[in-house]
Amino acid sequence: MSRQNVYDNPEFFDGYQELRDEAAGLHERVLEPHLDELLPDLVGKRVIDVGCGDGWLCRIARERGAREVQGIDPSSRMLQRARELTSDPRVTYTRGFVEDVELTAGAADVVTSVLALHYVEEIAPVLARMASWLAPAGTLLAVIEHPIVTSQNPKVGLRTVDGASVWPIDDYFAEGQRKERWIVDGVVKYHRRLDTILNAVISAGLVIERVDEPGPSTARAEPVDPDAIRPAVLAIRARKR
Amino acid sequence: MSRQNVYDNPEFFDGYQELRDEAAGLHERVLEPHLDELLPDLVGKRVIDVGCGDGWLCRIARERGAREVQGIDPSSRMLQRARELTSDPRVTYTRGFVEDVELTAGAADVVTSVLALHYVEEIAPVLARMASWLAPAGTLLAVIEHPIVTSQNPKVGLRTVDGASVWPIDDYFAEGQRKERWIVDGVVKYHRRLDTILNAVISAGLVIERVDEPGPSTARAEPVDPDAIRPAVLAIRARKR
Repeated sequence: MSRQNVYDNPEFFDGYQELRDEAAGLHERVLEPHLDELLPDLVGKRVIDVGCGDGWLCRIARERGAREVQGIDPSSRMLQRARELTSDPRVTYTRGFVEDVELTAGAADVVTSVLALHYVEEIAPVLARMASWLAPAGTLLAVIEHPIVTSQNPKVGLRTVDGASVWPIDDYFAEGQRKERWIVDGVVKYHRRLDTILNAVISAGLVIERVDEPGPSTARAEPVDPDAIRPAVLAIRARKR
Repeated sequence: MSRQNVYDNPEFFDGYQELRDEAAGLHERVLEPHLDELLPDLVGKRVIDVGCGDGWLCRIARERGAREVQGIDPSSRMLQRARELTSDPRVTYTRGFVEDVELTAGAADVVTSVLALHYVEEIAPVLARMASWLAPAGTLLAVIEHPIVTSQNPKVGLRTVDGASVWPIDDYFAEGQRKERWIVDGVVKYHRRLDTILNAVISAGLVIERVDEPGPSTARAEPVDPDAIRPAVLAIRARKR
């Protein structure tokens, strides 16, 4: 099985760094302003962050009092960047795909994954793995691209209808691969229906505690901001039974 | 406070009966084929159906073994029709709005509401009332128009973009009234974000057990079926703690 590791593609990696440096992406405009609502209490907690990328959330978790944080990511370039940006012995990074990385069962209080699970082909077994890493009463926070966003097939973005900007939905029920140009051509994401995602969380033995569809904190410079018309991300917080 | 009671409008009532007689609506094409998955076990259960209309679900609940069923609806015309169609002393009908009808707390095993809660202005207190009618471990089944459908402002239905039929989303984040022509002009429904709906279920003291976005069982005669492009309804099954 060959899994996508686009963050190790040099062209993608450079483009992604530029995007983050411009502070104009989902991270900065939609997620970071809502972190207070989205994140569970982290004081004294052992945290695993799946798809940690450059480690931004690992560092934030430590700022918010986490006892120790382990970041997991398949991209060696992203982990190299993460290690450059992190000087904290309580944050460790492990290279691996969430589908097969070996972690201790029941040893984490919080497992997070922010904007990573839409790269995963089969979400139910991955959520079950993430739940297995949690201690009883531990918390999962999963933030993924919203099904309203991933459903477009092909991705066309905003269009104009009757003179107004709209987000067109054309193929919600067909789950599976969606290829799009994002920094480079052919980035693969997976569209899942909302019911598939929520039922997978429940089947993993978790109780849904809160769902969020954060909107943008500030409007973009461009005439219409798609993130202000339709939800960009779906955030699910759930507790292990 | 004046609440909408459009089902007592004679023109609407006649048009609605025609629609149901044609068996071409959401009920027949999307809901009824999925009732086996959507409905909890009803054998021996005391059931309350909120917004029962002509009592179709009350009668189905009895066919599926419910011990007794109480249908609630604000429309006297719909309840008259329901009584004409029902010859079963274990099914009773009560006229009232869900917001203020007086029912015994903790006396129901199952509370259902199918395609009614999008007429309710404030969903959180209504879900809390419905939960209060449930005995511990009782089950709520709420089926409502999907936020993807209710969000259009104004409702424009399908449109063509790049030669394909799409369902345009233009105003997801603005919750509140949406007026549309449905049989008659000016029918008021309320758009709520998905997170608002799910968090209201959780705040009512319920644990979400299953979410469904059923698609149509058969395609319509017309060229493109909107219900095949985007989910028409959101079904939530939840259990009282």
